[in-house]
Amino acid sequence: MSYLDKITSPTLLLDEKICRANIKRMADKAARHDMKLVPHFKTAQSNQIGDWSKEYNITEITVSSVKMAEYHAGQGWVNIHIAFPFNPLEIPKLNEIAARQSMSVQLINADTARMLADQLEHTVGFFIEIDAGYGRTGVEVSDFGLIEEILLIAKNSDKLKFKGFYLHAGHSYYMPDIPELYEQTRNALSMLKHKYNSEYPHLLTRTGDTPGCAVMEDFGDIDEMGPGNFVFYDMMQVDLGSCDREDVAVCLAVPVVDIKKDKKEILVHGGGVHLAKDVLVGENGLKNFGEVVLLNENGWTITEQKSFVKSISQEHGLIKATDELLEQVKVGDILGILPIHSCMTADAMGGYMTLDGKMVDHAEGCV
Amino acid sequence: MSYLDKITSPTLLLDEKICRANIKRMADKAARHDMKLVPHFKTAQSNQIGDWSKEYNITEITVSSVKMAEYHAGQGWVNIHIAFPFNPLEIPKLNEIAARQSMSVQLINADTARMLADQLEHTVGFFIEIDAGYGRTGVEVSDFGLIEEILLIAKNSDKLKFKGFYLHAGHSYYMPDIPELYEQTRNALSMLKHKYNSEYPHLLTRTGDTPGCAVMEDFGDIDEMGPGNFVFYDMMQVDLGSCDREDVAVCLAVPVVDIKKDKKEILVHGGGVHLAKDVLVGENGLKNFGEVVLLNENGWTITEQKSFVKSISQEHGLIKATDELLEQVKVGDILGILPIHSCMTADAMGGYMTLDGKMVDHAEGCV
Repeated sequence: MSYLDKITSPTLLLDEKICRANIKRMADKAARHDMKLVPHFKTAQSNQIGDWSKEYNITEITVSSVKMAEYHAGQGWVNIHIAFPFNPLEIPKLNEIAARQSMSVQLINADTARMLADQLEHTVGFFIEIDAGYGRTGVEVSDFGLIEEILLIAKNSDKLKFKGFYLHAGHSYYMPDIPELYEQTRNALSMLKHKYNSEYPHLLTRTGDTPGCAVMEDFGDIDEMGPGNFVFYDMMQVDLGSCDREDVAVCLAVPVVDIKKDKKEILVHGGGVHLAKDVLVGENGLKNFGEVVLLNENGWTITEQKSFVKSISQEHGLIKATDELLEQVKVGDILGILPIHSCMTADAMGGYMTLDGKMVDHAEGCV
Repeated sequence: MSYLDKITSPTLLLDEKICRANIKRMADKAARHDMKLVPHFKTAQSNQIGDWSKEYNITEITVSSVKMAEYHAGQGWVNIHIAFPFNPLEIPKLNEIAARQSMSVQLINADTARMLADQLEHTVGFFIEIDAGYGRTGVEVSDFGLIEEILLIAKNSDKLKFKGFYLHAGHSYYMPDIPELYEQTRNALSMLKHKYNSEYPHLLTRTGDTPGCAVMEDFGDIDEMGPGNFVFYDMMQVDLGSCDREDVAVCLAVPVVDIKKDKKEILVHGGGVHLAKDVLVGENGLKNFGEVVLLNENGWTITEQKSFVKSISQEHGLIKATDELLEQVKVGDILGILPIHSCMTADAMGGYMTLDGKMVDHAEGCV
């Protein structure tokens, strides 16, 4: 019995082979650059995929919320880092987790550092997040006053331990010149390392975005990389040049509920609550909410002529179909959609089905 | 103890008073027009809110998936209608539900009608969905050939019972002239009713969108209305003129994790996995992913000067803040965000907290 026989409603498929190859490729790259890979599990949010990762020498992970940290705690990780400016309201929950799991957090202001120093019950590491131009979050790279204020608070605490500097060059998703961004990243982290490593000889520097980690070959003296999306990739990463379509490891299986041959449209059950609403806009101005692939017993095949989801609402996906696709498909069939942003799709779906029909866990789901 | 003391991470607040007032207002309007209100529960997805609705003479509901129908089945509804082109792969599941709950489905093609006629084990009603210009889904209003093909299949079945015509004028979300769209809707449904009611004297016509049901006063001879979003409303509906800000019944409570006074920015834990990524774009070109309100022990207050979420990623929300807001807020506080699209936010959050700190269920969550 094929996995396809088990699908009657939108289901997120996971190709274990592709996923493992993605992890191995990034782990090999990190090793080649003498860096430690600390993957960001906001994408997979899965203990099963965590276990696969351990086979490629992954020993520590990153998450983006305390809730996610709680989910992955106690699964044999040397450390779990919460790469989100720490929310002081969650110190009691952090105390609970840190009693049984080595943890680190991310700091960008003195207020939170002070509250942690006052209220922590167990040793917790921290990275200072640095903003070198992305502008979303972080201490500005030249704001030594703030960096030293945080370090001083930690120095007077027996619980809060400085680990190093963390930089997420998230503008690699929007700006074309990744090598230029990476020069900025390398320079910022290298400057900070040299400025503070006489006082903190074990301090680490870490950078994180998937496009950068995928395409760059010069990481300078950065110690660690923490990409997330690479474990699955998606059409946004294909568009950015981080990977090929063949590297996308997840695919939303969607039932065909109507076909309008004259309009060249196929209506599927697969909308914003399944795929999320991330979108690519083509040069022609056409919106693309996901690309159609053909499912078979062994997985999916990428077609030469592309069909894509042109519009989406809560449960509806409307595909602009090629003639080739229209000829093959009938109501009651199941198509595959490669998502635009796999992190959001995985979070929306809350679980995966592998190509042998087994379910794989996801933190936010009820699987 | 206030509900606020229970919040440490992103939490979807529900103001029961506002929600009940929204239900009552629409129920009164339907009664005034001698129409039946059959609310679309894709928005609330809640049995608790279902129970509130029953107090306003709501006896039937609409849902958008078989999964949702399963969740609401057996809760005392006279009928549950699945307002999504029926997916034939789910006939076995429909048979299970229809054994204990009166159900109806939506049809737009003969293939699915035939499969239902062959495989149904219990009586199930159906509406034919009509497209009168929206273009997402439905039988074109003038395609009598297809309408009659579906009716003929049903006539030869002892299980498939024709109930009437359903029309969702979803373009009311994009096009400014709702009265013009409604003329189209009224005319289409009226024409079909008169054409088929000698043969089907009990046939019903139903229309559904919230903007139309909220602002229109002329429904012609339409029998039923099935809006969904009105139960909560949101900033998109405020923008469309369907309601006032004071009518929005849900609000995402988000912890403040950083403040950059110089940039007038506040960083909160509240991103795409909480709010979803629906966006309003202002005349100034600025993006708005949600509007800030101030929380207090009794709910929230709307400020005169507006602050809003200007950018969003998976977990981060970055607020463009007024001076007034910056003066009041500190790290560790909790702000409220009125969502752009409450259906998507509710689905992402999977549960609600009322202002007395109680949890309210949502189908897609694990509450």
